[in-house]
Amino acid sequence: MEQFALQFFIACVTAAGFGIAIAAFGCGLGQGMGLKAAVEGIARNPESSGKVTVTMLIGLAMIESLCIYALVISLILIYAHPQAAAIAGLFAKGH
Amino acid sequence: MEQFALQFFIACVTAAGFGIAIAAFGCGLGQGMGLKAAVEGIARNPESSGKVTVTMLIGLAMIESLCIYALVISLILIYAHPQAAAIAGLFAKGH
Amino acid sequence: MEQFALQFFIACVTAAGFGIAIAAFGCGLGQGMGLKAAVEGIARNPESSGKVTVTMLIGLAMIESLCIYALVISLILIYAHPQAAAIAGLFAKGH
Amino acid sequence: MEQFALQFFIACVTAAGFGIAIAAFGCGLGQGMGLKAAVEGIARNPESSGKVTVTMLIGLAMIESLCIYALVISLILIYAHPQAAAIAGLFAKGH
Amino acid sequence: MEQFALQFFIACVTAAGFGIAIAAFGCGLGQGMGLKAAVEGIARNPESSGKVTVTMLIGLAMIESLCIYALVISLILIYAHPQAAAIAGLFAKGH
Amino acid sequence: MEQFALQFFIACVTAAGFGIAIAAFGCGLGQGMGLKAAVEGIARNPESSGKVTVTMLIGLAMIESLCIYALVISLILIYAHPQAAAIAGLFAKGH
Amino acid sequence: MEQFALQFFIACVTAAGFGIAIAAFGCGLGQGMGLKAAVEGIARNPESSGKVTVTMLIGLAMIESLCIYALVISLILIYAHPQAAAIAGLFAKGH
Amino acid sequence: MEQFALQFFIACVTAAGFGIAIAAFGCGLGQGMGLKAAVEGIARNPESSGKVTVTMLIGLAMIESLCIYALVISLILIYAHPQAAAIAGLFAKGH
Amino acid sequence: MEQFALQFFIACVTAAGFGIAIAAFGCGLGQGMGLKAAVEGIARNPESSGKVTVTMLIGLAMIESLCIYALVISLILIYAHPQAAAIAGLFAKGH
Amino acid sequence: MEQFALQFFIACVTAAGFGIAIAAFGCGLGQGMGLKAAVEGIARNPESSGKVTVTMLIGLAMIESLCIYALVISLILIYAHPQAAAIAGLFAKGH
Amino acid sequence: MEQFALQFFIACVTAAGFGIAIAAFGCGLGQGMGLKAAVEGIARNPESSGKVTVTMLIGLAMIESLCIYALVISLILIYAHPQAAAIAGLFAKGH
Amino acid sequence: MEQFALQFFIACVTAAGFGIAIAAFGCGLGQGMGLKAAVEGIARNPESSGKVTVTMLIGLAMIESLCIYALVISLILIYAHPQAAAIAGLFAKGH
Amino acid sequence: MEQFALQFFIACVTAAGFGIAIAAFGCGLGQGMGLKAAVEGIARNPESSGKVTVTMLIGLAMIESLCIYALVISLILIYAHPQAAAIAGLFAKGH
Amino acid sequence: MEQFALQFFIACVTAAGFGIAIAAFGCGLGQGMGLKAAVEGIARNPESSGKVTVTMLIGLAMIESLCIYALVISLILIYAHPQAAAIAGLFAKGH
Repeated sequence: MEQFALQFFIACVTAAGFGIAIAAFGCGLGQGMGLKAAVEGIARNPESSGKVTVTMLIGLAMIESLCIYALVISLILIYAHPQAAAIAGLFAKGH
Repeated sequence: MEQFALQFFIACVTAAGFGIAIAAFGCGLGQGMGLKAAVEGIARNPESSGKVTVTMLIGLAMIESLCIYALVISLILIYAHPQAAAIAGLFAKGH
Repeated sequence: MEQFALQFFIACVTAAGFGIAIAAFGCGLGQGMGLKAAVEGIARNPESSGKVTVTMLIGLAMIESLCIYALVISLILIYAHPQAAAIAGLFAKGH
Repeated sequence: MEQFALQFFIACVTAAGFGIAIAAFGCGLGQGMGLKAAVEGIARNPESSGKVTVTMLIGLAMIESLCIYALVISLILIYAHPQAAAIAGLFAKGH
Repeated sequence: MEQFALQFFIACVTAAGFGIAIAAFGCGLGQGMGLKAAVEGIARNPESSGKVTVTMLIGLAMIESLCIYALVISLILIYAHPQAAAIAGLFAKGH
Repeated sequence: MEQFALQFFIACVTAAGFGIAIAAFGCGLGQGMGLKAAVEGIARNPESSGKVTVTMLIGLAMIESLCIYALVISLILIYAHPQAAAIAGLFAKGH
Repeated sequence: MEQFALQFFIACVTAAGFGIAIAAFGCGLGQGMGLKAAVEGIARNPESSGKVTVTMLIGLAMIESLCIYALVISLILIYAHPQAAAIAGLFAKGH
Repeated sequence: MEQFALQFFIACVTAAGFGIAIAAFGCGLGQGMGLKAAVEGIARNPESSGKVTVTMLIGLAMIESLCIYALVISLILIYAHPQAAAIAGLFAKGH
Repeated sequence: MEQFALQFFIACVTAAGFGIAIAAFGCGLGQGMGLKAAVEGIARNPESSGKVTVTMLIGLAMIESLCIYALVISLILIYAHPQAAAIAGLFAKGH
Repeated sequence: MEQFALQFFIACVTAAGFGIAIAAFGCGLGQGMGLKAAVEGIARNPESSGKVTVTMLIGLAMIESLCIYALVISLILIYAHPQAAAIAGLFAKGH
Repeated sequence: MEQFALQFFIACVTAAGFGIAIAAFGCGLGQGMGLKAAVEGIARNPESSGKVTVTMLIGLAMIESLCIYALVISLILIYAHPQAAAIAGLFAKGH
Repeated sequence: MEQFALQFFIACVTAAGFGIAIAAFGCGLGQGMGLKAAVEGIARNPESSGKVTVTMLIGLAMIESLCIYALVISLILIYAHPQAAAIAGLFAKGH
Repeated sequence: MEQFALQFFIACVTAAGFGIAIAAFGCGLGQGMGLKAAVEGIARNPESSGKVTVTMLIGLAMIESLCIYALVISLILIYAHPQAAAIAGLFAKGH
Repeated sequence: MEQFALQFFIACVTAAGFGIAIAAFGCGLGQGMGLKAAVEGIARNPESSGKVTVTMLIGLAMIESLCIYALVISLILIYAHPQAAAIAGLFAKGH
């Protein structure tokens, strides 16, 4: 029985490790686009610096939140899956 | 019987972990596009800052909602799948 | 018999979790394009703000609807597949 | 016999769930392109707003129809496949 | 014999579900390009609106036809494959 | 013997369903490019409308022909493969 | 022996169905590029219409020829493969 | 022995069918680029039409030659592989 | 039992090694975009150098944080997975 | 022994058929780029036609050489592999 | 037991070798973008050379750090995985 | 023993045939870029023709060298692998 | 035991050979971008040649370092993996 | 034992043949970008020819070095892997 329980944890770590990576990939690109436009804008028009920075931070925070959703799911898969305790309990019994 | 029940939970965590990641990838790119245009616009025309920020927030919220659909499905797969209780019940019987 | 019934639910959760994610990816990109053009337009011509916002919302709603089709299919696969009850009934008999 | 009947329903839900998602991906991008051009056009030339909106809606409806074809096929696969009743009937006999 | 007959229907639903989706993806992008150019053109030159709309509709109809070819093949695979009746007849005999 | 004959028909429907879809994808994009240029051109120079529409239709017809080649092959695979009758005849004998 | 002969025909229909589709995809894009340039050119300079159309048709015909090579190979694989008769002859003997 | 000989012919038809298709894909795109530039050039400067057409034909012929290499290899694989006769001879002996 | 425990650690190192790599890929591209815009901006308008550098650093830090999320998950998978100790304990018992 | 010898020839025809196709794909695109620039250049500046054509032919020949390397390897794999005779000799002995 | 221990080291070297490569790919592209902008900027405005070089070095160092995270993980997987000693110890016992 | 020796030659021909093809793909694109720029440059400024052609040839030769590295490796794999003689010697002994 | 030890060395050479190749791919593209900008800049403004060359060399060296990380990992996998000696020692014992 | 030793050499030739090919692909594209910029620059400003050519050669040499790293690894895998002699020695003993 234990080997099947281990397969569950294997699936969890695979999904957690790759999931956060894929999300970071896309959100990193998205934040890079936003950052690119912000620094271009400030370089052209330094007076707009305050408004641009505030808008950029709101946007980066929105994108950050998408990645944090994936981070939360990853952490749930590692630490707080509802069946994890029950499945880990199979270790003890299986011997 | 338990190993098959575990395969169900494995599928759930895989779909949840990768699903939210793929959605975050695409929505992160989409929000990055919107953010890029917003900060460019504010830098060029700081007077339009209020209207641009409001429009940007509406749009980012629409994109956010797409990712939240995927998040909801991911959480349903982890915590609230209708058959999950019945399938988890197979653990008890299988011993 | 139960393991085959479980394979059905596994296929359902896989299709639901990845389906909504793929749809959210594409629609997120599409909405990002529309949002980008809208905020660019408002920044250049703030007087057009009302018409642009209305048109943008119509378009975002159309794209949103595509993702909601996928969400509906995902929810049907999780909660309302016509054979789901019959297949879940195999659990009871199989013991 | 039942496990083979179940494989049929598994194929149906897989094709339905991924099919609508892939279609929504492409059509979402396509509608995003159309929406982008429409809001850019209205922002540049607000007087053209009525004609642009009508043309945009015709086009979005055409693209929507493509996605609805896929939705119809998905719903047929879930609810109305001509052999589905016969195949579901194998459940009863198989016991 | 029935399981092989079922594999035939499985292949049909897979090809139908994914086929229409892939076609809708590409045609959705293509129609999006055409729509984009049309609304841009009308916004720049509203007097050309009639001719542009007519040309756009001819083009969208041509692209629509490509997707309808795929839809026809999909429906043939579900409802009207020439061997489908013979293969479905294997169900009856197989018991 | 019948299961092998069925595999032949499975390959036929798979190749037919995906083949027309892949061809429709590419030709849809190609027609979209042509349509885009045509409506842009008419919007800029409405007097050229007749010549542009004729040229566009010639080109779309050429691209359509490519997709129709794939459609013809798909229909041959479903209805008129030279060995199909012989292979279908294996059903009768196999019982 | 027959099942192996059937595998040969399966490979033929797969290669034929997908081969023409892949070729149509690429040639459709290529013809789309040529068509796009042609209609743009005619719209800008309607006097050049005759020469442009002739050149376009030469080019489209060259691209068409590439796709026809693939079509010819597909038809050979379905109707005229040199070993096809010999392999089909295995059906008769195998009973 | 025959099934292995058939596998050889299966590999041949697969490589021939997909090979010509992949080559046609790439060469179709390449010819499309050349054609695009040629018709653009003629539309801008109709006097250069003779020289442009000659250069275009030389270039298209060079690209065509690449696809013809693949076509030659495909035809060799179908009709003239040096071991094909020997391998086809295994059919006769195998009975 | 040990081989299954080892499979768990194999999954951990695979997910950790590839996860951080995929995240570094995307975030490296994103930071590259931001950096590109910053140095372009400073070269055009050296007076804006201070504001641009500060904004760039805020943005790079946001993107860095995405990659650090993936790094944290990778380190958790290597050093601090909650079940790791229990699973490593299977080594001792298995002999 | 013969089936293994056949696997060798199968690998040869697969590598030959796909290899020339992949090379033709890339070189076709590369030649297309060169051709595009050449015809654009001649259309803009017809006096430069001689020099441009010579340079283009040198470049196309260089790219052609890359594809011919792949063609040579493909022909070696079909006709002149050093072990081919020895391996074909296994046919004779194997009976 | 040893073969399973070896599988662990195989996974480590695979993840280490490909991980650093994928990270180097993405970060190399990112640094290339930054470098491109920097040398363009210096060539246009040589007076800004000092500030541009400093900003470029800060940015390249940030991107370098992403790749170094992956390098650290790779080296941990080769030299310092916490279970490596225990697993290597299985070699001794297994004989 | 011979079948394993044949697998070695199979791997050699696969790596040789695909390796040269992949290298030719990339180098063909690279040479195409260089050629494109050269003919554009000569068309704009025919006096620079000598210098441009020399520089282009140096660059094309550098890119050619990359493809020749792959060609050399391919020929080594076919004709001069250090273990090839020893492995081919297994044919003789194996009978 | 030896076959498992060999699998370890197989994984090492696979990871080393492909790892350095993937890193060289990405870094080659990145260096190409930097080089492109540098030679463009020098051609436009030859006086900036010294500063541009120095900056370019710093940047190329940074990108080179990324590829050298992958090279170091590849060489470690071939020559200096900490378990390599122990695993190679299994050859001796296994006989 | 020999078949496992052969698998080692198979992995070596696969990694060597594809590795150099992938590296040549990327570096060929990178060198193509550099070459493109150089010939464009010389055509615009022939006086800068000396400096541009020197800078181009430095850059091409840097990119060439990346590909040579992969070539060195490929040659090591074919001729100088430290375990190759020991593994080849298994041939002798295995008989």
